[in-house]
Amino acid sequence: MKSKATFYHAGCPVCISAEQNIAQALDPSRYELSIIHLGEFKDKIAEAKAQGVQSVPALILDNQPFHINFGAALSDLA
Amino acid sequence: MKSKATFYHAGCPVCISAEQNIAQALDPSRYELSIIHLGEFKDKIAEAKAQGVQSVPALILDNQPFHINFGAALSDLA
Repeated sequence: MKSKATFYHAGCPVCISAEQNIAQALDPSRYELSIIHLGEFKDKIAEAKAQGVQSVPALILDNQPFHINFGAALSDLA
Repeated sequence: MKSKATFYHAGCPVCISAEQNIAQALDPSRYELSIIHLGEFKDKIAEAKAQGVQSVPALILDNQPFHINFGAALSDLA
């Protein structure tokens, strides 16, 4: 069974760059990738926070959040 | 031909966690991964800096640096 990977971003240049590189570099045979734009789906912000996300872009791998560079604080998106 | 991926770390818990998750989640059919411990190989710090690394853990994908969470500033390792 594949592990779940979720990439949260907000459409900023830092996010897009991280998405195109890191998220797309994940092994697709092992990870099922979801990409969520928090600027467009503000109802997902609470879900992201609950998983430990503090800023975007962020990648959740096996329920653990990793913050990649820094695009925007989650509090700036609400 | 595989792309080159380099993961720089310094052995701290934040680094180890990022390595075991993000670095090992990369698609091995597309990326050839090098893992470099800058605490043990201080002569590699200049090389990391030249690639834009400012803190560890960091991942270089296709010559672009991504800083993941924050373990230590490069200046603290020299």
